[in-house]
Amino acid sequence: MTVPSSLSPLRPPTHDPDDPVFVAHEGGKLSMTPSKPLRDRADLALLYTPGVAAVSLAIAADPSLATRYTTRSNTVAVVTDGTAVLGLGDIGPLAALPVMEGKAVLFKHFAGIDSVPVCLESGTVDELVEAIARLAPTYGGINLEDISAPRCFEIERRLQQRLDIPVFHDDQHGTAIVVLAALSNAATVVGRPLTSLRVVVSGAGAAGVAITRILARAGVRDLVVCDSRGIIDPSRADLVEHKHRLAATTNPRGLSGPLGVALAGADVFVGVSGGQVAEEDLAAMARGSIVFALANPDPEVHPDVAARHAAVVATGRSDHPNQINNVLAFPGVFRGALDSGATRITEEMKLAAARAIAALVPHPTAGEIVPSVFDERVSPAVAAAVARLAPVARP
Amino acid sequence: MTVPSSLSPLRPPTHDPDDPVFVAHEGGKLSMTPSKPLRDRADLALLYTPGVAAVSLAIAADPSLATRYTTRSNTVAVVTDGTAVLGLGDIGPLAALPVMEGKAVLFKHFAGIDSVPVCLESGTVDELVEAIARLAPTYGGINLEDISAPRCFEIERRLQQRLDIPVFHDDQHGTAIVVLAALSNAATVVGRPLTSLRVVVSGAGAAGVAITRILARAGVRDLVVCDSRGIIDPSRADLVEHKHRLAATTNPRGLSGPLGVALAGADVFVGVSGGQVAEEDLAAMARGSIVFALANPDPEVHPDVAARHAAVVATGRSDHPNQINNVLAFPGVFRGALDSGATRITEEMKLAAARAIAALVPHPTAGEIVPSVFDERVSPAVAAAVARLAPVARP
Repeated sequence: MTVPSSLSPLRPPTHDPDDPVFVAHEGGKLSMTPSKPLRDRADLALLYTPGVAAVSLAIAADPSLATRYTTRSNTVAVVTDGTAVLGLGDIGPLAALPVMEGKAVLFKHFAGIDSVPVCLESGTVDELVEAIARLAPTYGGINLEDISAPRCFEIERRLQQRLDIPVFHDDQHGTAIVVLAALSNAATVVGRPLTSLRVVVSGAGAAGVAITRILARAGVRDLVVCDSRGIIDPSRADLVEHKHRLAATTNPRGLSGPLGVALAGADVFVGVSGGQVAEEDLAAMARGSIVFALANPDPEVHPDVAARHAAVVATGRSDHPNQINNVLAFPGVFRGALDSGATRITEEMKLAAARAIAALVPHPTAGEIVPSVFDERVSPAVAAAVARLAPVARP
Repeated sequence: MTVPSSLSPLRPPTHDPDDPVFVAHEGGKLSMTPSKPLRDRADLALLYTPGVAAVSLAIAADPSLATRYTTRSNTVAVVTDGTAVLGLGDIGPLAALPVMEGKAVLFKHFAGIDSVPVCLESGTVDELVEAIARLAPTYGGINLEDISAPRCFEIERRLQQRLDIPVFHDDQHGTAIVVLAALSNAATVVGRPLTSLRVVVSGAGAAGVAITRILARAGVRDLVVCDSRGIIDPSRADLVEHKHRLAATTNPRGLSGPLGVALAGADVFVGVSGGQVAEEDLAAMARGSIVFALANPDPEVHPDVAARHAAVVATGRSDHPNQINNVLAFPGVFRGALDSGATRITEEMKLAAARAIAALVPHPTAGEIVPSVFDERVSPAVAAAVARLAPVARP
């Protein structure tokens, strides 16, 4: 297969209507279709006026009936303000729409969820929280997507405080769940307990923060987080609030300095930075190391280079083994949450999702630490694991 | 056919899961489906990462490309805050969702438009304008629905000022367009020029205001508007702002008093009030009168009673002749606006829509002044008429 120019990492941002990617996007990627037949006046009277009035009145009297008689219970909003889209940065809500449509395609394909893009003009945290909270009656869950850090942390937290439906920032938690699943199996491959590993997370944005948090919850004790200026430690004067919290809760050996200092003797590198990592730094890691170079589309290190030094290598790319992709997590997480009537996605549900993904590869090897993104068992397994632990509203 | 209890005007607001209306609403009425195949990794690379990045970058560089490569150009948000739903009043956004889903079914069925419900927690005019304007990048048009008067007037006006996509409050303009179409043909039936008719509009909410405005635009000179307290005239001390404007621009003979005063000798009664009209008041109208009793589901007067006095009778109901239903207008109006890239729906476009609907009944009779809601010619005819007059953004 010839690689379309738009799939090349060196692509220019040009519009080529004959490129297969543009051809595939012609007219968009979603269609809203009636799920009930409208054939004649009798159908019209059932689906619209006057019939619908009875359903509306019943829901007004008992709001829980909206779960049964509307699309809400199977509908997730994919909400962005376009400030941190893929690796492209702040390209705005309109340019983010193709990504959100793509996400909606995945929601339907992998979990049967009706998901709708909601691309918002950006604004302050207050403004975005207000706008999103105001929309909430329409949906059974809210998937936040590609909202820049650190705003994303507060937006998610405040929305979840206000709403009784799950609010899930996929760039954080979807990534974190799949990384934990993959790292659990990678630890098995190298014959080490997960909790004994020295882990370096490169990147202190949405994904880095959430990965650090879920690994800590899973029992990893030696976590060091680096941003573009190096190791996050309390002595640094340039730390914004969420990095202060990272400094206070990670880096148990009190390291400071560049990424290379953190990597010396480390067991695991998790890159979610978009930056690069030097080969000599990887060479200085412990024997039997694990390298997850997850920046997309260009990993922090080419997997072939990483493989010279590491026992297990993973990337975000589909053209190399061990693809760490959120699609292993978010469809099943929301499926389980919607099916169980969950009011939020708890930390325990995220850990259970990671365990469910990992368990689908019972005998992991260096070449297979996670299931394929097209493995049809994944979403149902995640959904079942998540649903079992779901907190639900009191009737 | 047995009439389900939920279709009876005397229905209690109860939940009966075996009622055909509730059966028809099970699971909601909409499904979001991918319009492009996702079969394998190659499709995933085209529709999502890494391919989608090229489309997003192209749109960031040239926002007009969103029309071609996203769903935006065929997607209309059906936005409500649930404050004036059908004849049910302020039942809230969640209970309004079945109605908005029904509207989305109609948009797709009659015009091929992908429409999505957006049910908002209500708030001040400022808050709703902010929330809706912030959503706008997602959609090619905004259909406001079931928002209470007089807030709906300012919300629509301010949104249209801010946005470069059509904003159309269907309760106002959809109703007005179809009433004008029907009244034009009814005038033909009774052998009178439309502009010579003395018209009484009963109801000064969203529909009444818009009907009055479009009839004035169409050349009707003698318009009298009544609310629940009677004729709106400048001497009344109880008028809110939009009724002040009505008082200043209607009622050329300076009438005052109850509805009956307005109806004495009038040619046309248009009821959009939800109230009732006394038979003796209809009896006092001019010979060859026209009665549109449009309140739903219970008309202001039973059509059989009206027919004792009027030459032409219409209602909003499907079980009587001459059904005045917005579905004759809004699908085609938005189809034409989307197809032409209209930045708003002008008064001229609304008049053209009305003419197009009326023209589909070239030889109107007392029993047929408007086409059937299932007449497949209606939406394309309205779309073509609207598109010809559309104001578009400069390139």
